[in-house]
Amino acid sequence: MSNSLEKIQQPIVQEMVEFEKKFRNSVKTDVWLLDNIMNYIIEGKGKQMRPMFVFLTAGICEHITEATYRGAAMIELLHTATLLHDDVVDDAHYRRGFFSINALWKNKASVLSGDFLLAKGLLLSIDNNDFELLRIMSTAVRDMSEGEILQLQKSRTLDITEEVYFEIIRRKTATLIAACCGVGASSSGASAEIVQKMIRFGEKIGIAFQIKDDLFDYGTAEIGKPVGIDIKEKKMTLPLIYALNKTEKSKKRHIINLVKNESEKPQKVAEVIDFVKKSGGIEYTMEIMQQYYREAEEILADFPDSAYKVSLQNLVKYTIERNK
Amino acid sequence: MSNSLEKIQQPIVQEMVEFEKKFRNSVKTDVWLLDNIMNYIIEGKGKQMRPMFVFLTAGICEHITEATYRGAAMIELLHTATLLHDDVVDDAHYRRGFFSINALWKNKASVLSGDFLLAKGLLLSIDNNDFELLRIMSTAVRDMSEGEILQLQKSRTLDITEEVYFEIIRRKTATLIAACCGVGASSSGASAEIVQKMIRFGEKIGIAFQIKDDLFDYGTAEIGKPVGIDIKEKKMTLPLIYALNKTEKSKKRHIINLVKNESEKPQKVAEVIDFVKKSGGIEYTMEIMQQYYREAEEILADFPDSAYKVSLQNLVKYTIERNK
Repeated sequence: MSNSLEKIQQPIVQEMVEFEKKFRNSVKTDVWLLDNIMNYIIEGKGKQMRPMFVFLTAGICEHITEATYRGAAMIELLHTATLLHDDVVDDAHYRRGFFSINALWKNKASVLSGDFLLAKGLLLSIDNNDFELLRIMSTAVRDMSEGEILQLQKSRTLDITEEVYFEIIRRKTATLIAACCGVGASSSGASAEIVQKMIRFGEKIGIAFQIKDDLFDYGTAEIGKPVGIDIKEKKMTLPLIYALNKTEKSKKRHIINLVKNESEKPQKVAEVIDFVKKSGGIEYTMEIMQQYYREAEEILADFPDSAYKVSLQNLVKYTIERNK
Repeated sequence: MSNSLEKIQQPIVQEMVEFEKKFRNSVKTDVWLLDNIMNYIIEGKGKQMRPMFVFLTAGICEHITEATYRGAAMIELLHTATLLHDDVVDDAHYRRGFFSINALWKNKASVLSGDFLLAKGLLLSIDNNDFELLRIMSTAVRDMSEGEILQLQKSRTLDITEEVYFEIIRRKTATLIAACCGVGASSSGASAEIVQKMIRFGEKIGIAFQIKDDLFDYGTAEIGKPVGIDIKEKKMTLPLIYALNKTEKSKKRHIINLVKNESEKPQKVAEVIDFVKKSGGIEYTMEIMQQYYREAEEILADFPDSAYKVSLQNLVKYTIERNK
């Protein structure tokens, strides 16, 4: 699988190396603690999917420019900021037992470092008059925080419909990939219409990506997060929402009660997973994911053939076929 | 004292009412939990010093414009975001005993609502092409987070010089008032030179403001925060730093040891306060505050006379004379 990501990177391999260097420079600071946190983050970064989306969409639309590098850096700064903010200790951490006074100290450091990165990202674009990129990104920050809060709100009530689920994942996850594609397109000099098209493309892929992630909670991942963790955290995802909707009232009440009050017990989590599987929740969810995938593919089909297009097609495919 | 703030507001009283309305509209959202948090914040807001600085500096430079309202709203959004982020539970809260699982849940909500407000502030300025205001604000966010992190870093080591103290308060507190004055000036159409002058003015007032706040920890406030809370939190402020610097080694070690290891005991905090008072730390700190005050006054003196100027002079005076 990682081999396939390497292949996808081929048309932009030089750009990715160059980008890495520029990004490191952009986060330097004279505050020692902050500089340490930044180094730690840079070392630990993952698959680089976001910059890949930025460079490939710039390539498919027009061509990669200096603004594309800045756009990718801005996205990384912003994404890292949201990861740091996500890291703040909450009651889910408490329940799972990752908890210490030291974690509380880190809380403050995480929030503040996140703010610092946000500001760095903003200044990078302001100083270069990248106002269109800035608009795309700020919209993404707003939507992402709204989505996260919507999810937080619903995690306490558990009254969640498919509509709300899609609203949450659209704002929470899809927005960032949509922003990558919008930033890539805009940085290449594409027309407003094409930029909007790429934002729609990114949104569809982002939704498919999150659905795939939610499926991993039912044991379809090779490695990665342990099975049932969403249920433990009372996070209602599509397989469970679907299964609950097609079940008779008393069974529904029983399952909701398990999630609400007994989700710390492994055998109860297993019961919920079993219920979802027997109700066809997995198949239904996979079918929905495929629909989003096909819609994204259709948008790509309109673009002229190029190495970038092939890579983007493979990246889209990777999104729904990956098993970690 | 509150009477004096009312008098200061006189030349901008209509603008402040109008601003209040516009600000409420600017934070609306369709996410119920977020909307609730916003209402709670709006109800609880304080003396409105920041918008006052924005409107008065706009008035003294040229005149109040539509951009001044947006600038003031942007500042409030940003400031509220940083307050929310500041609210995140840390080990100081833990030590002081404000701590519950519910507080952990609120952590997440605080961070996310803060991000939402930041994004709202950004979009407000981007949508209106207020790029200069945006640059002033983003610089402020960067400096404030650096300052907070510097303080966090130093709170663990306690090796803090006067130089570091000024560096922290300049970045942490003064930057925001400097941004208010810069945004006010810039929104009025003032030249780059005047904008820079007002930023310097705001920085001086901001430093004086923070020094005044730090003095309250030694019992000079009428009401407000309890005495000795900074010492309890191992926050080194100017009176203590000065007192330590002019003391012989063994006494210095003893006091640092009290702050480091026994600051939860009221009688030890009292001992530290007594030490500072006897060393002349209060008088020294007041003299430094007066210096910043005079420098700010001198900058104002260059501007032509107007009701705005009189109010700004009074606001500056209020900063160092207030007793809460």
